[in-house]
Amino acid sequence: MSQPAAPLPSDPAEAMLARRRALLGGSYRLFYERPVHLVRGEGVWLFDAEGRRYLDAYNNVPAVGHSHPRVNAAVTAQMGLLNTHTRYLHEAILSYSERLLATFPEEIAQVMYTCTGSEAVDLALRIARHHTQGAGVVVTANAYHGTTAATVEISPSLGPAVPLGRCVRTVEVPGEGPRMGRVLAENVAAAFADLARHGIRPAAFVADGIFSTDGVRAEPAGFLQPVLEAVHAAGALYVADEVQPGFGRTGGAFWGFQRHSIVPDMAVMGKPMGNGLPIAALALRPEVGERFGREVRYFNTFGANHVSLAAAGAVLDVIEAEGLQANAARVGTQLLEGLKGLAGEFDRVGEARGAGLFLALDLRDGETGAPDAALATRVVNSLRERGVLIGASGPAGNVLKIRPPLPFASAHADLFLAKLREVLAGTA
Amino acid sequence: MSQPAAPLPSDPAEAMLARRRALLGGSYRLFYERPVHLVRGEGVWLFDAEGRRYLDAYNNVPAVGHSHPRVNAAVTAQMGLLNTHTRYLHEAILSYSERLLATFPEEIAQVMYTCTGSEAVDLALRIARHHTQGAGVVVTANAYHGTTAATVEISPSLGPAVPLGRCVRTVEVPGEGPRMGRVLAENVAAAFADLARHGIRPAAFVADGIFSTDGVRAEPAGFLQPVLEAVHAAGALYVADEVQPGFGRTGGAFWGFQRHSIVPDMAVMGKPMGNGLPIAALALRPEVGERFGREVRYFNTFGANHVSLAAAGAVLDVIEAEGLQANAARVGTQLLEGLKGLAGEFDRVGEARGAGLFLALDLRDGETGAPDAALATRVVNSLRERGVLIGASGPAGNVLKIRPPLPFASAHADLFLAKLREVLAGTA
Repeated sequence: MSQPAAPLPSDPAEAMLARRRALLGGSYRLFYERPVHLVRGEGVWLFDAEGRRYLDAYNNVPAVGHSHPRVNAAVTAQMGLLNTHTRYLHEAILSYSERLLATFPEEIAQVMYTCTGSEAVDLALRIARHHTQGAGVVVTANAYHGTTAATVEISPSLGPAVPLGRCVRTVEVPGEGPRMGRVLAENVAAAFADLARHGIRPAAFVADGIFSTDGVRAEPAGFLQPVLEAVHAAGALYVADEVQPGFGRTGGAFWGFQRHSIVPDMAVMGKPMGNGLPIAALALRPEVGERFGREVRYFNTFGANHVSLAAAGAVLDVIEAEGLQANAARVGTQLLEGLKGLAGEFDRVGEARGAGLFLALDLRDGETGAPDAALATRVVNSLRERGVLIGASGPAGNVLKIRPPLPFASAHADLFLAKLREVLAGTA
Repeated sequence: MSQPAAPLPSDPAEAMLARRRALLGGSYRLFYERPVHLVRGEGVWLFDAEGRRYLDAYNNVPAVGHSHPRVNAAVTAQMGLLNTHTRYLHEAILSYSERLLATFPEEIAQVMYTCTGSEAVDLALRIARHHTQGAGVVVTANAYHGTTAATVEISPSLGPAVPLGRCVRTVEVPGEGPRMGRVLAENVAAAFADLARHGIRPAAFVADGIFSTDGVRAEPAGFLQPVLEAVHAAGALYVADEVQPGFGRTGGAFWGFQRHSIVPDMAVMGKPMGNGLPIAALALRPEVGERFGREVRYFNTFGANHVSLAAAGAVLDVIEAEGLQANAARVGTQLLEGLKGLAGEFDRVGEARGAGLFLALDLRDGETGAPDAALATRVVNSLRERGVLIGASGPAGNVLKIRPPLPFASAHADLFLAKLREVLAGTA
């Protein structure tokens, strides 16, 4: 605004890019070499400004599908009634909390609300440190847990410009195998021992139950059991970050930790909770929050506002009514088998893995077998040009991340696999 | 859930209270000795489950009025189209950003989006510390700036159970007077000097432009000018927390800092921005965010989602179309004069102050003149029983906080003043 604006490029997308850079600054990044300009969404489909259709195989926030009529109706109805905060009595927060907690093991019997997963992880850290009176936190080597000052300190995936906290240690996540849980537990125990050696008392182990930024690690189910034991043996709390695997995405269980038959001390949820309306939460064992609750008041202005709660209630309705968890299991299995078929077909396709509708496919150099991030980038962008949206992730950037809205049907999986095969045949 | 639930009390409100305590834990607090169970809102009115009407003289989040049809229509329309994130191109974030930044001085030419004011202050701290490579932060003695781990460290109003950060210092806010700005500037300079003496380099001064938790300090307009100079002389950035005074509430200016004719380095906004839909932002001088933007990527999943942006655009529409800033000035003046009249009428009513529709009234012991928090509590609860909602605040808890939705009309002000006089006559 302070300088006369430079003339905008004549290409509409270029003009939008120039305005973005000027208005939002350098921290905002876009997906794809040719960013997508979306204007409409419906179910598993997104539409750009030219009316072109994209199969959404990436977005987990619109978990019950883009612009779901039942969520829209719930939001519209609540907007016409009331939208305030938690310092007045209101039935909706109570009935939603009862319904949400009914999806958890009985030990997890309280819930606190935030607007974002970042805020929920941040609150989990505050409560863990208040309860334990320790500060030490252990996370996985390429973890991402949020964007607040406290959560970026436990998010090594943000890279070296964002320092880890001085009371934070990281552990490698081993590849799949029968000793995987035991090795991870040993790594966690060693990290807490190192913290103790530096005079830092333990507070929490925080882990995404599907390890989405550590390359996606789902099998063997149960591998988190020895990890939970190691965390408790160190005197720390286990915080399950369910922002990625929660709300039925992994198919076999409603929560990621349930696949491993563990009961964490706290569970953090976010993204899909309101299908895009900002709402997130922390569910916890009451005894873990007791001291914090007694000594610290908590208020989050928009946390559990009536409109976001209405959306969240509709999301649970739709997951049940449309059988979306079972769909994630069924279509996820179909997709995983298809991905494994591609691994057999192409030298540059490595391991396929994941659970339900959270799947990963390694791309690699066909000769050395080394991770090939450049190939992953080419595949992601070629798919975008063919009308299919996915992303790449993982410590080496070579992991295709496939994480569609939950109504992804068998025919969508067929279409996705066909397009991916086409792209791999052309680029791999 | 782990214990058989105790039988619920037969009184509906008592039953809801028992469920709240069990489900949400001890950190959640309610307003009023007899909490209000609200079910509907419209304009400046709220309605409880028995159909009883309350004049809302407290809530600043529904700034354009509860359940405003224009906001509802914008949200409903956008819900039917698309709701995704900032990693795709979309016109709405660009046009809204241009419109928002047009309300700022030209030096403040970039904006970043979050979901809550807490997240926006938290981001301001991250950017200030990245830019200055310092850590020291100075805030006012009873400040409140948020609920994340980093923002509670600069929120002394949360009380001794929530420790301030080791790199944080507080300054007293002097009462109104011609030397007020000079004294506050000296306090700020001394605080940064103390930080330096401890080897802590300066990062930021963060202040709510209406000092809402420090007793509300608005006059004399301009008193922040020497403070800004002191902050810059210390090498720190000035962060204007506009969550309370922003969006026209103070009547004379759209932003609180504009009443003081200063240009801060960053400005944080939140609560009223989306009339209750979660959206908040940080506006900044581009040069202050340049290094952060170059080195650190930033993504907030729900930040500037299309639906919250649609609400935010409608809020700006309504503020303009209904002349709400001018209304805040006009009705605010009427209210302030009425409050000053009460100060002349009752010994236990002290100073009335504020700007626009953000007003404060001190209550005190009629003989000693000491702050009387118990009286403030009685007045707030008596008003609630008479169908008027306000709150009490301030370092000593004796300050009535009057902060209604902006469509508060002259007749609402008359009604409010009549009810307040009634209550004061009965209790003061």
